Amino acid sequence: MMFHGCDLAALAEKYGTPLYLVSEDEIRERCGEIKRDFTEKYENTRAAYASKAFQTLEMIRIIDSEGLSLDVVSGGEIYAGIKAGFDPGKMVFHGNSKTKSEIAEALDAGVGTIVVDNLTELEIMNRMACDRGMKQEILFRVTPGVDSHTHKFISTGQLDSKFGFSIQETADTAVPAALAMDGIDLKGMHYHVGSQLLENTSHLMALDKILSLLSDLKARYGWTAREINCGGGFGVHYAGDPERIRISDFVDPIMRKIDDAYKDCVDTRPLVTIEPGRWIIAEAGITVYEVCSVKTNSAGKVYVGVDGGFPDNPRTELYNAEYEVEAVEKYYAPHDVKTTVAGKCCESGDIVAYDVMLPTLEPGDHLAVLATGAYNYSMSSNYNRIGRPPVVMIKCGKDRLTVKRENYSDMLRNEI
Amino acid sequence: MMFHGCDLAALAEKYGTPLYLVSEDEIRERCGEIKRDFTEKYENTRAAYASKAFQTLEMIRIIDSEGLSLDVVSGGEIYAGIKAGFDPGKMVFHGNSKTKSEIAEALDAGVGTIVVDNLTELEIMNRMACDRGMKQEILFRVTPGVDSHTHKFISTGQLDSKFGFSIQETADTAVPAALAMDGIDLKGMHYHVGSQLLENTSHLMALDKILSLLSDLKARYGWTAREINCGGGFGVHYAGDPERIRISDFVDPIMRKIDDAYKDCVDTRPLVTIEPGRWIIAEAGITVYEVCSVKTNSAGKVYVGVDGGFPDNPRTELYNAEYEVEAVEKYYAPHDVKTTVAGKCCESGDIVAYDVMLPTLEPGDHLAVLATGAYNYSMSSNYNRIGRPPVVMIKCGKDRLTVKRENYSDMLRNEI
Repeated sequence: MMFHGCDLAALAEKYGTPLYLVSEDEIRERCGEIKRDFTEKYENTRAAYASKAFQTLEMIRIIDSEGLSLDVVSGGEIYAGIKAGFDPGKMVFHGNSKTKSEIAEALDAGVGTIVVDNLTELEIMNRMACDRGMKQEILFRVTPGVDSHTHKFISTGQLDSKFGFSIQETADTAVPAALAMDGIDLKGMHYHVGSQLLENTSHLMALDKILSLLSDLKARYGWTAREINCGGGFGVHYAGDPERIRISDFVDPIMRKIDDAYKDCVDTRPLVTIEPGRWIIAEAGITVYEVCSVKTNSAGKVYVGVDGGFPDNPRTELYNAEYEVEAVEKYYAPHDVKTTVAGKCCESGDIVAYDVMLPTLEPGDHLAVLATGAYNYSMSSNYNRIGRPPVVMIKCGKDRLTVKRENYSDMLRNEI
Repeated sequence: MMFHGCDLAALAEKYGTPLYLVSEDEIRERCGEIKRDFTEKYENTRAAYASKAFQTLEMIRIIDSEGLSLDVVSGGEIYAGIKAGFDPGKMVFHGNSKTKSEIAEALDAGVGTIVVDNLTELEIMNRMACDRGMKQEILFRVTPGVDSHTHKFISTGQLDSKFGFSIQETADTAVPAALAMDGIDLKGMHYHVGSQLLENTSHLMALDKILSLLSDLKARYGWTAREINCGGGFGVHYAGDPERIRISDFVDPIMRKIDDAYKDCVDTRPLVTIEPGRWIIAEAGITVYEVCSVKTNSAGKVYVGVDGGFPDNPRTELYNAEYEVEAVEKYYAPHDVKTTVAGKCCESGDIVAYDVMLPTLEPGDHLAVLATGAYNYSMSSNYNRIGRPPVVMIKCGKDRLTVKRENYSDMLRNEI
């Protein structure tokens, strides 16, 4: 089986398994689509890569070279961005519960935009900015009260959310507070309705509320937004889902709506930002495992045990995520065995994929699990003291190691 | 608020937050109960600590000094055991999908007992043992076909499981195969019905099946078991659960049943092993967080954002686990505010505890989440590039660092 011009069996042999493979070509193609269909098509727009989906130094460098901004969610992500040479001025810093030290780090690093989630944070940030003689550019995270049709754990726009301000709180409290602060420069609003959305209804409903909020704020305070950040959530193709959506399916209606709202307005239309994460990286990544055991249990089900699982991919257990699985060496063999691919953790829930059609497998065969680029490496753990797999990038049919395999002694490095 | 003689506010100040605190006194008390009510009460018994629940070098040393055996589930756990000075001869090695290299490492280290899950593994192990001129002592993992009343992800004894052999496969295939192998010394059987069990019905039902299997094997092959390993699953107290069960509630009926089965038998009653993990460590550990933000959202719910969450405790999101939460500085204040404690990850599901009664909190206050000793540190990740908290042990009112905090550069150590 080939993956972007590389032979998977050979890569499994070269780097060992489990193995994360990421196609740089695919990432750049997605970034290209974003530029063609969004940032270059529409003036005064930008895209920030939501790096929590997959953040390695090399990934940040690729994003940088594509000219995207960087969405970060912690001091650790800011630190990695700086280490990779990324301009902090092009970072957008999110989070519902930023620590004081993270806020200080962001101010000191010169992070361009901070998305403020709550009044506590606003007050701390203002004080810190004043102490530094700075005026920090911020957006408010607004919870538009829109329910998206996705998993509860990744749905974020509904009224009862841990994130952000309600429309009313934004208008009555947060905006006047920010406008009176010496250390704060309020640029605009951010909303995010949820992840892995395969249609744009909730995005557009949320945008309506944001646009009406902005017009209300103009009337009440004479304040004009310079940025609308529409967040991300653009869905990709997993097993059972339709093909990934095109970025234009989301941004064209968004831009029509925003341009309409500003067409008779004296103000310039604000900068429009989107934050794709999963959409850029999910399908660019796969995970390769080796089969360790094959059995038919007494309920008649075929189980294939592999050399990874929950530690490198907790998404099946967390979200009942479904993956397509391919047999690397037996790609062309008849796929006539309904097989459950079991992870190696001592935990019943550690299943890589339930009931997928595969050929008859033997120990030593390799399996490729598709679309594991997003939230696999970034959520990986050392559960059962299993080291995290290496990340190998592929570009023009050539492979290179970008994250080394975590070995036994790595896992003990902080132990006394 | 005090925890085993230590002031939590002072420890939060000294070590920072989030912070894992583990009471060595509590661990030793639990080990003491196991010795008093099991290993010293009944002859020819042993307890192996299921270290996947919480495995640090210091924890292994404590278990060693208490004289328990060590249940390990990977090459990494074996390696850590050896690094901590634990005798591999007292290790019990589990796993449904052991890699070839892990089997080789276990043989070379002299791991005392390997619990064989499937025929693939049995054949590989026999070949490797023969190559080394060894005879490896093994147990078979038997799936007794008993459903336990616990979460699907941690229920393991049912017929359709990724684990082990069915009773019939054990009797018809696995045992005769093992008895014919030069590199294998079949000692007995292992079963495990599930985790966090608060009553012993499924344990006893499974044991009935195992005892009848053993008598069948005696009749068919003249083979006598020298060990019955009953696994673990002994429940502890979490929010909403009753008080933890006593170890005697489980082992007394188990021992009665086994002794009964052997009372008219010419064979000596086999060694009986249990494998408590969570039961020893869960309630010995707590996690201390600092409050970063406090808000009442427009649905009228109070959210308190803390400086940790999913990366140090994925169990709420994985299993809907419920925790008791205490206010460290406001321990004696009226707990009259229904509060959701939100983790800091950019993910709606990252909630530490839903709707717990707490006092009115302010940024800078600390919260202690109880019974986080098991499967928190061991399942921790760097999601959102958040470093793992340090582990501080407490003994006789004195604190000592046993795992250092993971810092920003630690998280990049394998990146190129």
